[in-house]
Amino acid sequence: MALTGVLRPGYTQIRVTDMQAAVDFYTNILGLVETGRDDSGRVYFKAHDERDHHCVILRLADKPGNDFYAFKVLNQATLGELEEKLNAYGVATERRPAGELLETGERVRFTIPTGHVFELYWEQTEVGDGLGYLNPPILIDNRKGISPIRLDHWQLHGADLDGTFDLFTKVLGFTLTEKILGEDGKTVMAVWLTCSNKAHDIAFVRDTRSDTLHHAAFLIETWEKLLNAADLMAKHKVFIDIGPLRHGITRGTSIYFFDPSGNRMETFCGGYSFYPDMKPYTWTWDEVGSAIFYHTRELNERFLTVVT
Amino acid sequence: MALTGVLRPGYTQIRVTDMQAAVDFYTNILGLVETGRDDSGRVYFKAHDERDHHCVILRLADKPGNDFYAFKVLNQATLGELEEKLNAYGVATERRPAGELLETGERVRFTIPTGHVFELYWEQTEVGDGLGYLNPPILIDNRKGISPIRLDHWQLHGADLDGTFDLFTKVLGFTLTEKILGEDGKTVMAVWLTCSNKAHDIAFVRDTRSDTLHHAAFLIETWEKLLNAADLMAKHKVFIDIGPLRHGITRGTSIYFFDPSGNRMETFCGGYSFYPDMKPYTWTWDEVGSAIFYHTRELNERFLTVVT
Amino acid sequence: MALTGVLRPGYTQIRVTDMQAAVDFYTNILGLVETGRDDSGRVYFKAHDERDHHCVILRLADKPGNDFYAFKVLNQATLGELEEKLNAYGVATERRPAGELLETGERVRFTIPTGHVFELYWEQTEVGDGLGYLNPPILIDNRKGISPIRLDHWQLHGADLDGTFDLFTKVLGFTLTEKILGEDGKTVMAVWLTCSNKAHDIAFVRDTRSDTLHHAAFLIETWEKLLNAADLMAKHKVFIDIGPLRHGITRGTSIYFFDPSGNRMETFCGGYSFYPDMKPYTWTWDEVGSAIFYHTRELNERFLTVVT
Amino acid sequence: MALTGVLRPGYTQIRVTDMQAAVDFYTNILGLVETGRDDSGRVYFKAHDERDHHCVILRLADKPGNDFYAFKVLNQATLGELEEKLNAYGVATERRPAGELLETGERVRFTIPTGHVFELYWEQTEVGDGLGYLNPPILIDNRKGISPIRLDHWQLHGADLDGTFDLFTKVLGFTLTEKILGEDGKTVMAVWLTCSNKAHDIAFVRDTRSDTLHHAAFLIETWEKLLNAADLMAKHKVFIDIGPLRHGITRGTSIYFFDPSGNRMETFCGGYSFYPDMKPYTWTWDEVGSAIFYHTRELNERFLTVVT
Repeated sequence: MALTGVLRPGYTQIRVTDMQAAVDFYTNILGLVETGRDDSGRVYFKAHDERDHHCVILRLADKPGNDFYAFKVLNQATLGELEEKLNAYGVATERRPAGELLETGERVRFTIPTGHVFELYWEQTEVGDGLGYLNPPILIDNRKGISPIRLDHWQLHGADLDGTFDLFTKVLGFTLTEKILGEDGKTVMAVWLTCSNKAHDIAFVRDTRSDTLHHAAFLIETWEKLLNAADLMAKHKVFIDIGPLRHGITRGTSIYFFDPSGNRMETFCGGYSFYPDMKPYTWTWDEVGSAIFYHTRELNERFLTVVT
Repeated sequence: MALTGVLRPGYTQIRVTDMQAAVDFYTNILGLVETGRDDSGRVYFKAHDERDHHCVILRLADKPGNDFYAFKVLNQATLGELEEKLNAYGVATERRPAGELLETGERVRFTIPTGHVFELYWEQTEVGDGLGYLNPPILIDNRKGISPIRLDHWQLHGADLDGTFDLFTKVLGFTLTEKILGEDGKTVMAVWLTCSNKAHDIAFVRDTRSDTLHHAAFLIETWEKLLNAADLMAKHKVFIDIGPLRHGITRGTSIYFFDPSGNRMETFCGGYSFYPDMKPYTWTWDEVGSAIFYHTRELNERFLTVVT
Repeated sequence: MALTGVLRPGYTQIRVTDMQAAVDFYTNILGLVETGRDDSGRVYFKAHDERDHHCVILRLADKPGNDFYAFKVLNQATLGELEEKLNAYGVATERRPAGELLETGERVRFTIPTGHVFELYWEQTEVGDGLGYLNPPILIDNRKGISPIRLDHWQLHGADLDGTFDLFTKVLGFTLTEKILGEDGKTVMAVWLTCSNKAHDIAFVRDTRSDTLHHAAFLIETWEKLLNAADLMAKHKVFIDIGPLRHGITRGTSIYFFDPSGNRMETFCGGYSFYPDMKPYTWTWDEVGSAIFYHTRELNERFLTVVT
Repeated sequence: MALTGVLRPGYTQIRVTDMQAAVDFYTNILGLVETGRDDSGRVYFKAHDERDHHCVILRLADKPGNDFYAFKVLNQATLGELEEKLNAYGVATERRPAGELLETGERVRFTIPTGHVFELYWEQTEVGDGLGYLNPPILIDNRKGISPIRLDHWQLHGADLDGTFDLFTKVLGFTLTEKILGEDGKTVMAVWLTCSNKAHDIAFVRDTRSDTLHHAAFLIETWEKLLNAADLMAKHKVFIDIGPLRHGITRGTSIYFFDPSGNRMETFCGGYSFYPDMKPYTWTWDEVGSAIFYHTRELNERFLTVVT
């Protein structure tokens, strides 16, 4: 098996301050598919080309932010092995029972050095993408709004960047693809990590505000669909932070925007194919503008300061 | 490490009947980068976004076709392990010395049940893509012609499809992503296999003509660049077999064409992201037209019959 | 006023053999907007970015084909002037009363040398594109199916090509942009004519079958949307004649397909900008393959023979 | 003839402060084709898909800006008629002799109420686009840099907007397509005018700084090529003002950037097709952000203040 261990970002639990507005936004503007509601009032969504039951769980709360982030792993054995590795590394884990989240098996929960709560799981009900596995057509019907095809990655902020980097690379099997060095030319200010062929599956930024999210990103198929996404956001007066734009890091293209509760999201497209024989890219502090906003090379204040 | 074992198609040795015409075609029309020539007169090329020394080796011969196909593996240990597995499975292997191919380490060579000669290797000199690893720009300079970014996959034909399928899935760690069933609804006529997040890294078709190649495919970034590739082929009177088109299988888009020696090549773009929790797609015989040429649903005679 | 005289293809009356199937196709697959039905059972449609009431009128009949073709002219004075010119040239005209076609003013009807019935009109109720004229958004809501933005052009066949060419260029103010010469290097086999900045607004082909239509074309915005159109056609088993493809003539891209009654249609995208200081392009008989299907350079039998 | 009168923006004489740097920029970065140099040291360029001798003339000066702007008209008779109309309207004209500008016939020069010097001409040597008029291929060879296909439009600023608007619509045959109203809901702050099927051929903005240029725009074929243009600008450290972005006005997409002398330029793509039966769009002051930068809806200071 060439793909092993941690497979991909699986789901995230997002806090929203107005559930009705949020459900409308995630359904009609972002264009995810609602797949269920649980007894505690949480609403579950999946993206169009995903087959598992959900990638987003909305929870009503009094402030925005994300409660936890989950990676899907290859199988039950992998879940056990990773839990053992975490424990051996000194990270406490907690088993959460199957069914606690809709259509989801047992989860291993733990907190990483930057303060974020993570979960690993291997089992979730397959609801499919509507195309089936027999003579599948190309087009998924009834796509609404921006209609990303997958949850793609997160950018998380926290103080103990070194600790989290160590944990992700030594225990969870991630590989560094890019990093930004600080003004001193030594301190690592941010890292991009992959567990697949993608240019990144997660990114971490050094920030005194631990356990915060900069953005959750959803995958868009093409640069032209990204333009359409921006047009749609503008028509519906979605608050666009910045974009469409190109990243120097990952070579991806992007729009940053906010959901009605103030959670920053990204529609992301592109990025190179990673292979383990590639060395990591390094960005120096004087080129950090190019690293983030490749064309204009100027970082805006809001992008630099707002996290949830 | 989430990506293990066999990483990707690495290189192929292509027989050409007129070396000067071939070098001109691979350089100026296909748009690969010549990286070296060896004592036996072979000419080496890489694609633009590849970092290793070569993905294509041209050898002067009296008829077209490919001599051997090589996969790059993760590291030296993996090379040894895979050789042991091959031997244990009953496949004889031969060690070819480092340096026999330019800038390439030791290779493990073996013949698969469909008659094709394969090689595994883990080491090749990195010549880079010209962007470097420090504050890299987006654009590679001086791209000529079609300018694919990578060698992507091969489609190979042979009689013992079952044997080769068994070898690739049980020994080499590949996963089935799609298959075509024959008129009887049972016989597997063709299989698509991946060793990565790609929808396929190689395909095999049941055919009495063993050890033959249907096409070698190179990766193009977008559907618009694919149109440009077709325009360029047409301008230079390249023999286009068919395309631009959409595949039902892999969802990719494509042009098939021939090099001056009669080797069929493909420029391929797109395809879904594979994960191991996805089930394989099945195409039935009545839908084989849609599987291959999704829009017109008609297979042309040349596409069905010409292999080298 | 820089744009004068004949403005553009306005509407066409298409014969369909099953009205219910046709309405479903034109609404849900082609993705036009139904705007009305008249007492005689005809159904009217407009394309999304058109503001006038209709560009297509469907009429139930026992065989496919088009009844007549209409150009919109600048204003009432132009209508009168063109009628006078037609009469002076020797073409009989007939005034059809306002209101005979839904929401359409007085029309001038006449038959051209290739046998086709044409109409000129200057007035039709504006129903708009849904965006309004005040702070308009970019995106039109509720687009279905292929969703072309405009009726673009027709290709018509008939015996007296010279007569029709003469009429269109000397009386109606069209300009030749491209032509195909026959095997003798002299006989004009086909002409492309514009009345605007477009590479063509109409084309005529020499053919013994007068008063026939090869295809009616609708405008698609981009090459990527053309791919989406083909995917959608394939999903709904629309009979695709050929495409997506590039034309040498006009540089446009295209898909040819048939409506359920057997009328050939085209989704067309692109084409150069015409200006009157450009000379016409000439295609010789040995390059007629490139002229029509630029990439494959092979004309298929169906494309060459089926007209309605 | 459906296209009459003024055809299109023909050329502009741009002041540059370092001729060698400018020639390098216009050749290798912007990617125009140098077509000649005259005795006074001026350097002439054309865009790739233009057939006439030049669209840009560079003149060495001590500050940036444009000396004059020229429209090509249909023919010699039109030139005379427009001169008469201008004189009858009260605008003084001056005949400049053929050959004073390289390969260019006689020009009619005049100053418009906003202070800009304009020229009309009908004759310029055709140098072609390299494709010829016989069996033309699609692709132009040896395109460098951003490689726009045409000079598209200018945005000019001046105090007497009403006077210039009157002149362009009443005398030169332009049509209003869009306008911005000021805070009072009455004062017209800016107008977009067309003489073709384009959404605009020129725009004027009310500004106390008469005879100034906001930007000269060059046409790019697709949104994807616009991304490539931005990547190329960034790689070569071209000063990008803003973009890639969408305009509400015209629906076009765009990048604004500066040449080495500080002249703002635009690469423009898209825009709707104008026809004379369309009403003009109106943008109110509260939506001026959307009008200019449709997605972010925020105007930046530099864009609002820098003119040359």
